[in-house]
Amino acid sequence: MLNQHFIDMCGQKSVIRELFMYGRERAAEIGYENVFDYSLGNPSVAPPESFTKEMIRLLNECEPVSLHGYSPTLGIDSAREAVAKSLNDRFDMQYEKKDIFMVSGAAGAIAHSVRAVTKPGDEVITFAPFFPEYRPYIEATGATLKIVPADINNFQINFDAFIDMINDKVMAVLINTPNNPSGIVYSTETIDKLAMILTEKEEEFGHPIYIISDEPYREIVFEGVDSPFVAAHYNNTITCYSFSKSLSLPGERIGYIAVNPACGDSELLVDMFGQISRGIGHNCPPSIIQLAVSKCLYETSDLSVYETNKNILYTELSKIGYEIVEPGGTFYMFPKALEDDAVAFCNKAKELDLIIVPSNSFGVDGHFRISYCIPTEKVERSIAAFQKLADMYL
Amino acid sequence: MLNQHFIDMCGQKSVIRELFMYGRERAAEIGYENVFDYSLGNPSVAPPESFTKEMIRLLNECEPVSLHGYSPTLGIDSAREAVAKSLNDRFDMQYEKKDIFMVSGAAGAIAHSVRAVTKPGDEVITFAPFFPEYRPYIEATGATLKIVPADINNFQINFDAFIDMINDKVMAVLINTPNNPSGIVYSTETIDKLAMILTEKEEEFGHPIYIISDEPYREIVFEGVDSPFVAAHYNNTITCYSFSKSLSLPGERIGYIAVNPACGDSELLVDMFGQISRGIGHNCPPSIIQLAVSKCLYETSDLSVYETNKNILYTELSKIGYEIVEPGGTFYMFPKALEDDAVAFCNKAKELDLIIVPSNSFGVDGHFRISYCIPTEKVERSIAAFQKLADMYL
Repeated sequence: MLNQHFIDMCGQKSVIRELFMYGRERAAEIGYENVFDYSLGNPSVAPPESFTKEMIRLLNECEPVSLHGYSPTLGIDSAREAVAKSLNDRFDMQYEKKDIFMVSGAAGAIAHSVRAVTKPGDEVITFAPFFPEYRPYIEATGATLKIVPADINNFQINFDAFIDMINDKVMAVLINTPNNPSGIVYSTETIDKLAMILTEKEEEFGHPIYIISDEPYREIVFEGVDSPFVAAHYNNTITCYSFSKSLSLPGERIGYIAVNPACGDSELLVDMFGQISRGIGHNCPPSIIQLAVSKCLYETSDLSVYETNKNILYTELSKIGYEIVEPGGTFYMFPKALEDDAVAFCNKAKELDLIIVPSNSFGVDGHFRISYCIPTEKVERSIAAFQKLADMYL
Repeated sequence: MLNQHFIDMCGQKSVIRELFMYGRERAAEIGYENVFDYSLGNPSVAPPESFTKEMIRLLNECEPVSLHGYSPTLGIDSAREAVAKSLNDRFDMQYEKKDIFMVSGAAGAIAHSVRAVTKPGDEVITFAPFFPEYRPYIEATGATLKIVPADINNFQINFDAFIDMINDKVMAVLINTPNNPSGIVYSTETIDKLAMILTEKEEEFGHPIYIISDEPYREIVFEGVDSPFVAAHYNNTITCYSFSKSLSLPGERIGYIAVNPACGDSELLVDMFGQISRGIGHNCPPSIIQLAVSKCLYETSDLSVYETNKNILYTELSKIGYEIVEPGGTFYMFPKALEDDAVAFCNKAKELDLIIVPSNSFGVDGHFRISYCIPTEKVERSIAAFQKLADMYL
């Protein structure tokens, strides 16, 4: 008599996590240094020292009852104000405290945003390749997820397919730039075109269509790449942010939602997020972590290793003969597999202790994802394995 | 076109929080020392020093990438194991790691438990007086909350009313002992009688009926009071625990769910909790807090002030003429108001800068809640205000 929906979900294990577990087991057998585990998007660089110092300062200097006391439902005032200011400073926006909701990471941010702007039966569109966890977030709300097929030439948006798919039940479009798994950053041209189409469709359908902009990789953009701040290009933008990647704090579950005040409903939406949190019993992110990150808003971990790794992989794999759209950011790359069956291809890689994720999980056939948040020396040593893998085909 | 359900919730502000906000404003006007704010159940004593020390040790000594890395979905292994062991040591139980789910406080624990054991349309029974947030937790799952009226003579369970109310749609009974708002601890006799009835009804209806046992006040039990560990008396018990009160960490959002392995489905339920978290986007409690509390499982804050405050209030208010069922634990007391209209009574108290919460929020008429997690000297000074309030009636 238990809830069958959640029992069924237990059976649908994440392919990425299974590969990661395999990698761990294999490392225990043959040694960590001999497994090239490109499965998981787990940051490999330390948080900035200022974060650790601020945590220790709070613990040493603050009166502990208030330090560890309840956060207000919408987040600690000073943290919300600091986030608003940092976005205004960096992106020339007009956020105020009332537009910011502190939340436990981008996952919660997306789930809350979808709950707020849809009713069961409404539709949300996202673009392949996409992060597979979007599906459980959106299905749990009762809305339906629709996937626009990828433009595999550049992994920007396939606008023809998008225009065919949009209808008056679509309340939100969920985008992720810089993108997991492609590493591609949507250009200003892409965002402006998307904004233009949505504005037309809002008028046609007579209701707002929100962009829910999932931005955990915002700070990981490579040299010279155009990376527009989405909300600056479209008023009805709900920005979902996580400090997991920029400050290397994935376990501490901290992020925010920023609702563009130009959308007109930002304060109401932020209030609704509070009620959504209340309903699911997840009231607010941890107080001490809210306070500590709000002192590190202009900093990041040393993210340069990801660009170094990208350059090595892109250059060397291209030389071998892999077809790759060059990433503009993140720590992901999404090359074409050397056979149509991505799962078979990744299984062959596994035999070489090269752990890569087949593209099917991300809504695209015939590709694979490399998560290159691993030490550079390991990236260098892995090239031989990619060569061996190619030798089976080329 | 936003989701009306959550917009409507925004209008239903918590009475307790509104009184608390009033108390803060009033304190700003006439001075903090002149407002007797008994509104909020916020711990007033510091966490144990060992918690702060362990946090600082982790920050100073641990490799930061793993320290702040993703927690497994069900919680960090060492924390789950430590929780199981501490429960076995203290309550002679048989928990293993697989029976423990780390969760961000009792609120999430209850919401997850209800989601796992009900489908929309099922019923959950709780007993007045009850914590008003149970309503949003349960309504958000699609189940229906049924309230058994209070036995105002002793605030144990009104079994006649309970037996009238239970039917085959009831999948769970939600109890809270020691109780917010009454401060009453359910006796062994009460728990055993409840277990006996549920066992009979399980047989009659042919499905399990879970006790969801909300236990954030488990460690705040006064001298000589019988406080049975519920799961030891009923196999189908899901224990929801929070460290908010015992370690004075309400803002850090940390607790656990322990499913009695004797229920037969504990591992499945724990797996389901992981999937529920995944769906709502709230993946796991913060890693560093999981690690730190798992080193403090045999400790509490110095909770003796709550018993001191209880003794003063119970003795002095009884002398004045208030009728009170003496609390056995928590930092709450639930006396009879001196007129039938609890709201009018609490408004009169407010004029004396005595902030108490009318009982209606808790599903009982004609009473009020005192949250005596405030300094003892303030409790002592507040007696005169309770006397003045009584003088208006007696």
